[in-house]
Formats: sequence, C-alpha cells, structure tokens
Amino acid sequence: MSIEYLDEALAKYSRSNIYPFHMPGHKRKGSLFVSQCDGLAEDQYMISPKNGKFLQDDSQWSAIWGMDITEIDGFDNLHQAVGILKEAQQRAAELYGAAHSFYLVNGSTCGVLAAICAAAGKRERVLVARNCHKSVYHALFLQELTAEYLYPVMMEDKIPGQITPEQVEEALQRQPAAAVVITSPTYEGILSDVAGIAEAAHRHGVPLIVDAAHGAHLGFGGGFPEGPVRQGADAVVMSLHKTLPSLTQTALLHICSGRIDLERVKKYLEVFETSSPSYLLMAGMDACIRLLRTNGSELFARYRRILTEFYRQTADLRQLHVMTREDFSPREAYDWDDGKLIVFVRHPAYGGPWLHRRLLTEYHLQSEMVSARFVLLMTSVMDEPQGLRRLAAALRDTDDWLTGQSQEETGFDNCRSLAVTNLYQKYEISMPIYQAESGKKEQIALEDCAGRISADMVYLYPPAIPVLVPGEIISASFPGELRKCQEMGLSVGGSGHISVGRISVVCPLADTGV
Amino acid sequence: MSIEYLDEALAKYSRSNIYPFHMPGHKRKGSLFVSQCDGLAEDQYMISPKNGKFLQDDSQWSAIWGMDITEIDGFDNLHQAVGILKEAQQRAAELYGAAHSFYLVNGSTCGVLAAICAAAGKRERVLVARNCHKSVYHALFLQELTAEYLYPVMMEDKIPGQITPEQVEEALQRQPAAAVVITSPTYEGILSDVAGIAEAAHRHGVPLIVDAAHGAHLGFGGGFPEGPVRQGADAVVMSLHKTLPSLTQTALLHICSGRIDLERVKKYLEVFETSSPSYLLMAGMDACIRLLRTNGSELFARYRRILTEFYRQTADLRQLHVMTREDFSPREAYDWDDGKLIVFVRHPAYGGPWLHRRLLTEYHLQSEMVSARFVLLMTSVMDEPQGLRRLAAALRDTDDWLTGQSQEETGFDNCRSLAVTNLYQKYEISMPIYQAESGKKEQIALEDCAGRISADMVYLYPPAIPVLVPGEIISASFPGELRKCQEMGLSVGGSGHISVGRISVVCPLADTGV
Repeated sequence: MSIEYLDEALAKYSRSNIYPFHMPGHKRKGSLFVSQCDGLAEDQYMISPKNGKFLQDDSQWSAIWGMDITEIDGFDNLHQAVGILKEAQQRAAELYGAAHSFYLVNGSTCGVLAAICAAAGKRERVLVARNCHKSVYHALFLQELTAEYLYPVMMEDKIPGQITPEQVEEALQRQPAAAVVITSPTYEGILSDVAGIAEAAHRHGVPLIVDAAHGAHLGFGGGFPEGPVRQGADAVVMSLHKTLPSLTQTALLHICSGRIDLERVKKYLEVFETSSPSYLLMAGMDACIRLLRTNGSELFARYRRILTEFYRQTADLRQLHVMTREDFSPREAYDWDDGKLIVFVRHPAYGGPWLHRRLLTEYHLQSEMVSARFVLLMTSVMDEPQGLRRLAAALRDTDDWLTGQSQEETGFDNCRSLAVTNLYQKYEISMPIYQAESGKKEQIALEDCAGRISADMVYLYPPAIPVLVPGEIISASFPGELRKCQEMGLSVGGSGHISVGRISVVCPLADTGV
Repeated sequence: MSIEYLDEALAKYSRSNIYPFHMPGHKRKGSLFVSQCDGLAEDQYMISPKNGKFLQDDSQWSAIWGMDITEIDGFDNLHQAVGILKEAQQRAAELYGAAHSFYLVNGSTCGVLAAICAAAGKRERVLVARNCHKSVYHALFLQELTAEYLYPVMMEDKIPGQITPEQVEEALQRQPAAAVVITSPTYEGILSDVAGIAEAAHRHGVPLIVDAAHGAHLGFGGGFPEGPVRQGADAVVMSLHKTLPSLTQTALLHICSGRIDLERVKKYLEVFETSSPSYLLMAGMDACIRLLRTNGSELFARYRRILTEFYRQTADLRQLHVMTREDFSPREAYDWDDGKLIVFVRHPAYGGPWLHRRLLTEYHLQSEMVSARFVLLMTSVMDEPQGLRRLAAALRDTDDWLTGQSQEETGFDNCRSLAVTNLYQKYEISMPIYQAESGKKEQIALEDCAGRISADMVYLYPPAIPVLVPGEIISASFPGELRKCQEMGLSVGGSGHISVGRISVVCPLADTGV
C-alpha cells in the first residue's frame, strides 16, 4: 500500500466539500476573503454545491489557509499520536535511525528543554559545552541545574571549536553528572567527535544530549559527515528547517537509547509545546522526510557538485578568504560541514558588516550571519548552481575592488581593531543560573558592572550563544567589548535593558559584604 | 504613510530577486521542487535573471515556501522586536486596548506558562479555577506553585459554569495569593464576570490572569460580550486562530497593567517560545488584525445575521436541542458566547458521538468536539450563510429521523446511561502537583487506584481540561467513569499508559504508612 504523506492528505482535504465547524476560525479561507467578495450579495458568500470549494481570494495566501486544519477526524493528535502523525514520526525515526522521533512545532528550543529536563532531575549536576544555544541555559534555569562547563578551543575570529572526548572523560572522572550536553555541528559547522564523547559518557552511565540544530542534513551522503543519531548520542535535537527543505520553526527530537526515560520526554514535550500544533508545519516536515527518502542521494550528490565548483572558483581570492578544512587543526575541529560558506575579510580597513551590506545591496545576496571579520552564508540541497555562481562572481568582483583600496586601517567600520575584541571569555562562575536569577538583583550601568555577578544572560544573535550567563562574574573588559559589538551593529540580546546600557547583577549579601 | 502589514511585506519579498544564503534550507522553493524539475539539465535549476523568480512547483504549496523566511534584514526579530514586528504587536495592543501585546507562535500554551511564571514566584500560592486548560497545571508544576482551586458550578452534561467574584473575594480574604487564574470564555463559551473578579483581585492587590483562548473575537460588536482586556484583567491570553481568521498555533498575550512585571514576562516568553518563529504564522496574525481594523464591524454584523437565522431555524427541534441563553441561570453563567453551537441529543437511545458521526458522514459537516450528550460546532466571522443553512437542514433532517425511532434506551452507543457519568468530580487534594510528580511513584492498574494519590494528569480532549491532576486523591468511582468515556470513544489524554488501563500514583511513605 502506498504511503499517504501529510501534505498530500491536507491538499486532498482542502479540496473536499466538508464544511468546517471547528477551529481554526479562518474556516480554510483566510483573511483576504472579504475584499475579494466585495460586491457579492450575501448569499454568494457560499460553498459551490458543484465543486465543493470555497470562494477564495486568489492571492498567494489562499493555499495556506486551505490546508491549515486542526485535530479533526482522520488527522490524529500530535500529543497522543496513533494515526497519520504516528506514522509520520516513525518515518522520521527510520530515516535517521532513532528509536523514537518526535515532531517539534516549537523549534529545536522545545526539544532542548524537554531532553534536558527529562534526563536531569531538579537540582542535579550536568556537564554542558559552554558554546550551547541559549535554550540549553533556559533548561538549566528551569530545572535549577548546576552546570560544569566544557570550554571549546577558540578558533580564528572567535569561532568556537570542538569539545573533545578527553574533556568529557576527565570531567566525569572528577564528578558524576546526570547528562552531558554538547552542540555538534555548531552554527559555523564545527563537529565534535560525537562517537568518542558518547563512549566516554556511557562509560560513566551518563546520557549524551546533542543539540544538532544545524545537523539535520548530515548522514545522507554527498561527502558530509555522519549524523549524531548513528554515532551513539542518546538524544538528538535537530531543526529541519535550518539545513533542509522544511518550514521555519520545525524540528525533530530523536530518542536513541533507553538512557533517557521516554515517558518523561513525552511529558515535558506536552509542557513546552502548544496543544494546537500547526498542520502546515507538520506537513512540511513530512514532505521533507519524503524528499530525503525518495531523492536523498541524488540531491546530495548534486549539492556536492555545486559546492565543489564554488570552492574551486573562490580558491584564489586575495583580500577575501573562503574558509576551508585547511584553516583549522585537528585539535580545533574534529570535522567540519563545508555547506556553511564562511568568508573572511582580510583587508585591514573592512570587515564582516561591510561585506554583508555590499553583498546585499550590490548583488542582492542575503547572507545568514555577520561577525566582526566574516560573513556566514548557508547553503542546502535546494541551492542552485546559478545561485552559488552569483555568489562566487560577487566575491571575485569584491576581491578585485578591495585589492585597489589603500591598506590603511581607516575604513569606515574599522573592523580590524574590533576583531581583536574578546567578548567570549571564560568567566569565573559564582553560582548556578537559577540562583543568580531568582535572588535579589539590581540594575546598574554597564560601565559599573565589572566584578559583579551577572543576573542577566547576554548573547549576540545569530547564533544566540550566550557570552555571559547569570551567575558568572563579569570581567573588567566586558563592558568595553560589548560596546564595541554594539557600535559595529551586531545584535545584542538577552534583556531589554542591555540595549540602553544597563545590566542586572546579583545584590551583595548584606552580612557577608560579598 | 500607509502601514505595511507583514503578509504584504512577505509576499513582496517572495517576488524579489534576492537570493537566500540563509535559513530556512528550503530556499523559498520547498520540497516538491525536484520532481518538478525532472528532465531539466542541471543548469536549468536556476533563477531567471529576467523575472528573478525561482522555478517553483505549481502545487498549492509553492506560495507557502515562497514566504517562509527568517530574521533577515528588514524583517526584525520577535524576541527583540524593534521594527516591523514591534509595529505589528503595537497594532494588536491598540486593537484590544492592552498596554503591551506579544505575538505567540507556540499557541496560547506559551502565553499561559509565561503569564503565570511571571506573576508568581517559585513555590508561591495561587488561586486557580479548576476548569482551566492543562497548560495552567503545567505552569503550576514548573513553578512548584500551591494552588487553591475555585470550582465552577456544573451545568447540564458537565459543562462547567462561571467562577464568581464572590468566590474570589472569599478565597482571598481567607489567604493571600500571588495571582488569580480563570478561563473566560470557556471552551463551551461560558463567561465569568471578569470585571467583578478583577475588582475583587485588585482589592487584595492580586493580578488577574484570564485564559481567553476562546475569546479573541469578543468586543468587536455583533452582539458579542466585551473582551477581558477592557474589563480589567491584568494579563490575557487569547488564541487568534480559534475564533478568528488566523493560522493554527497563533495567539496573543496581552499585558494590561503594571501588576505583572513586563521584564519577567519577556524573559519567560523567550524561554517557552522558539528562537526561530515562523513568519507565516506571524504574518497570519498581522493579516487578522488588519481585517478586524478595517472590516471588523461589518463582518461582525454579518456574522450576527447568520447566527440569528440559524437559531431561528433550529428553535423547534424535538429530539435534538440547540442550546440558547435560556438554558442556564444567572448563577450558572454570567454570559455566553452563542457563536458556539451546542446541540444536545434528547432521544434516549442516541448521544453525542452518534450525532457527530452522522453529521460528518451523511452531511459532510465536521464538528469541533463531541461529548456524551452533545456536539459542539464552532462558528466565526468567516462562516457562510449557506454553511449554517446546511447545518440547520441537517439537524432538522436528523430530528425528523430520530422522531421516528423507538424511545427505548437501547441505542448502539447507549449514551443516555453514559451521560450520567461523573468524571469531573471535586477530588480531595493531598499535595501540590509538583510534589506528586517529583516524588517516588508507581504505575498500577486503573481498577486498583481508588484512594491513592494520583501522580498523573488525566483529561478528555478536546478541551484538555484535566479531570484529575497530580496530588488529588482518586475517588472510588473514577476508574469506572473513565472506562465509560473510553468505551464511548472519547479521547483520553495525559499519559500514555492511561490508554492501556494503568495510572501512576504516589508511593506511600514507608514510615508513615500513608
């Protein structure tokens, strides 16, 4: 029997003549309906008895409304799946090699929260890579966990490198932990030795949780590394939308062993995820899984050809430099996903923000992320050869232009000096996140915060990896470094008052004078 | 200057020739791309330099992919909104009369969690209507709150009625609380006196949180009651998709006073909501707000005409009965939203599940929810006169058919006897939810659970209002009542093992022999 995928089922349902006396309130028509029907008599706002379709607006939006349904007969229930959604999730598990896979409609965020809360009980101790996404720190906060941080080696322009099995082994030998949490691949595509880390963790009976938000495309050939599910991780969170053709906000949580209690995972997913999940988002996931099943190897082979051509075309730039595997040592990265195009600006008077703006305004190429010294551009199996050729041509053109410019460090955004900032420091930890956030705190001016214990999380975004987390003691250089980032136009997140130069710190205890 | 709404901005952007080197990985083309391009040479997978559009599949899905973007230049960032998303949220606040409104892409669920966690600190005491949605109990769990429950009067067939200002006043006089949490309107459209309850709460300096997931359409005329924001609630959560034309999973959190700390609200929203919010979902919200601003009164006047006609056409049914305001007393409900069509089966041999199936299979009318004795059908401003006429005709036809059937109580689904079940009981509370869930527990057979302290949440869905919450002592009649519901085909949720006849209970303490 042929499989019915969710997107097909929805498209079929949207063409049926079943009248919806249920949520959603748009009644499969959407909000452009009225202006479209101006001039029609009231009786003409109707279902045609002949073709059974609603009168719909003819905008791009009509298809969207037509397929957005709720848990009606035949369409299952995500939180207690027994039918089409159960099968869809099983297809995902089979494709990735997981024991159980859960559709996430609240992004990787809710998968990270659920996996950590399921693996570690209240106030337990966990081992966490310090370059994790903010959602990991939110889980530490909610579950009141004490974290020992593992610090990655820092590569050029503060790209965090790998976490090693040796770091994990050493830390677990010193003290037990309820879970190990790492990010692999990172936002910049750096992979750790997940198999080695899993082995180390399992030797101590500890589950390994991998935030692979950027790794859903791994393990399907095309010269890309194997994915973390097949490398022995116990729980893996991956955004489908980041590196595969799936709608934004869609993700998977894979549970791969019995080391994490499945009932606890389900319970926390029910807590952190809406009880009205979008069928559009879920259908987009199922369509993505189908594409990988049916055309995966062909697509990834084509993707590799496109990338190879791009790297060849950009190998000899002079003022710009496209990162390759040769740029880092085995100590810095276990492996790398070269689907992330990282373009450094070598010219002393120009930097990442300048290149980002130039690519967008001169060549209509929108990059993903900008840092002081580089621009990160994301590719996927859905890219066009022509798209990457446009980029290569733009980079060559820019490279030529830069070669003609004076080499003095006086460019308008003066990024060379900014590039030596050191915002990502190893801060001394005074107390767990929860304690710092829940105790008495005060808001002070940024310039006065050195030496104080932060009660705020501060991060640059993307990628929303905290540079400072609550409980860390703020260094003397932090305010200046942060200000440089703000002046450079990088986005600083965490709390609203950071943007107006203020930060929350823990109040000293009166009696101890701390 | 004219406003640019988000859906318009996205539609425009999707027609631009900007090439996406960013998330999402579908590159605005989606997953049907490949089969569409079979037979094309590799070079033809390209952007036409002339019209700047991607080759797209021609299915209903192409528009969806085309507008699904991420936080690129010009499209702001939900969690630190300063541009188009800030303005969109301000339009929502203005429309509803709130001080601040937050777009929620993780449903009302994350708004409920954020509002309660912001208003009540860890282990504080709150006053909660016992007929709240499961997400309220999840907030109690996360924040380790102790709840005193307010029980609504129960109406016919266990429809929960209102909570009164007197109940709130009396409870707050006895003991203080960090917040009062009620649901108004309920799933069945029952409204409490929010203004009176707000006054009572504010007399004691306590903020009122209203889960108005089903109340986003109130306050726009058409004879519907006023909404809770303008009645003095301090925080209001509303699903936009439930009763208005907006995509499933979209909701708003309104903060209406200074009684709830705005910084705490923002912080918890950042915890409970994805860091990759869907622009489709957000655009659907903005389009909904636009529709209400521009065509609200006209639409609601039309909606009222349609409803009036329906109630007139179904006033004289004999074996069925469509609920009206005359069916309840002022003691039972402060007001009612008659946009919820509630059709009771009076014939002794047939019940709600039977009517639900008949409406779907014979008349192609999909209802929202089924109970032992009634079917609930939801309407909205987007309904058609013709749609409600179809329903009225189907009900009259069914009524005629039932009138010809024997009045003996031997129908195949025997709902008369089921209707006397009493699953929604007032259970004795032994301990707070958090304590029951986090202590030692064991799984036992449902038939053995009477007298034990539940460690599970058990609910029927829709509407996912718990019949039993962790910490409550299970009554002798509970297992039998639950089994009847399961036999009737109602969906029981909570934990996976409930469906196989098992339940988690708190282990007795060895030393006390509890």
